[in-house]
Amino acid sequence: MIFKQFFEPDTSTFTYLLACEKTKQAVLIDTVESEVPKYVAALAEQDLKLVYTLETHVHADHVTGADSLRQKLGSKSVVHRDAGAMCGDLLVTDGVHLIVGSLDLEVRYTPGHTIGCISFFAGDRIFTGDSLLIGGCGRTDFQQGNSGQLYDSIHAQIFSLADDVIIYPGHDYNGNTQSSVGNERKNNKRLGDNRSREDFIKIMSELKLAYPKYIDVALPANQACGRIAPPAQAA
Amino acid sequence: MIFKQFFEPDTSTFTYLLACEKTKQAVLIDTVESEVPKYVAALAEQDLKLVYTLETHVHADHVTGADSLRQKLGSKSVVHRDAGAMCGDLLVTDGVHLIVGSLDLEVRYTPGHTIGCISFFAGDRIFTGDSLLIGGCGRTDFQQGNSGQLYDSIHAQIFSLADDVIIYPGHDYNGNTQSSVGNERKNNKRLGDNRSREDFIKIMSELKLAYPKYIDVALPANQACGRIAPPAQAA
Repeated sequence: MIFKQFFEPDTSTFTYLLACEKTKQAVLIDTVESEVPKYVAALAEQDLKLVYTLETHVHADHVTGADSLRQKLGSKSVVHRDAGAMCGDLLVTDGVHLIVGSLDLEVRYTPGHTIGCISFFAGDRIFTGDSLLIGGCGRTDFQQGNSGQLYDSIHAQIFSLADDVIIYPGHDYNGNTQSSVGNERKNNKRLGDNRSREDFIKIMSELKLAYPKYIDVALPANQACGRIAPPAQAA
Repeated sequence: MIFKQFFEPDTSTFTYLLACEKTKQAVLIDTVESEVPKYVAALAEQDLKLVYTLETHVHADHVTGADSLRQKLGSKSVVHRDAGAMCGDLLVTDGVHLIVGSLDLEVRYTPGHTIGCISFFAGDRIFTGDSLLIGGCGRTDFQQGNSGQLYDSIHAQIFSLADDVIIYPGHDYNGNTQSSVGNERKNNKRLGDNRSREDFIKIMSELKLAYPKYIDVALPANQACGRIAPPAQAA
């Protein structure tokens, strides 16, 4: 498998390129609009054909590159059926396998950060978006977030995997690039094995987070797969 | 590629099994609930793993086996996003490629028989459901059917293919099992090259067809992927 992790520093977002060595078919997970030229160059460098752009959820902090890439390369946008992005070309649900050459990505429904969150499990690694971050997790106070549901999602769909499964998150703000199921069960400050569901709900309710910086631009744009609406004209 | 065509005589429905010889992954197109044991036996005989059941549309004449197969074998149900079957596990749109081992099925949106009709193009063959039948086509007087739209779909998405592409339809009532793009362009009584869009709309408007025999059972069941609701109990 061809694999590459990208980092966009303004919003500390990770994007992942996965491709089949034999068929040269590729997917990108959680792209950022401003970084599209980098993805295009990386694909061209290895003569890869982008088949799908996958979204772990409708992001509130950055604009997806899905629509740009669709226009440039003919890739198709994949998102959960209930994420509120009917612009998606392929709407998925829990348990669906996306197969691209030798890649086999199992969709795991992990709501809680948003109602439409999914993780992609590829056998030895899982791409958790903002559901599970290294040492923490995404906030649960917007987009139909729900702390109890997030706790249940993480335990049923991620912590049920083997300890050595690699965690690739949607963001990191502390210089980490990956973790593992075992590490997070042991060390995650909010969701580790020493935290009960009640502990977690209490922690999340006391976070007092600022209003998300880019949400008013990012959310409507991402509900349209990254097409940013032009400013409304005066009548 | 492993390939098998099934025929269900009560509703003259064709079902297709396609599988990758190497990975043993399989798909079924347009299953019929009463025939599920035959599909299960055919899959077992060749040690195949059913990944997806594909629907060319929400059928009005027979009940799909999608839900039965999902329960028995863990397969996922694939249907067009706008077909009115939100029970689908994977909702697709025009141009999406479904890749299963060496199989690559391109979704071609062909509305007109119903608003949610799609065909599946596999390089040398296309599965046209009820959009294009051998010598004819599906009716256009139910489920948001539209004769002009069906004419446009057939011409843009099917007759634009090479003449030797094989047509595998959703039904045949005359003992045929396949045709080709070239044959249909030459000989289709409603849609052949000698018929204009206006001719076709006129032909369809004058058909005087009977009310579909099974529509009142089949339609609600298929909107739920084949789960037949138990009769309502008296209060």
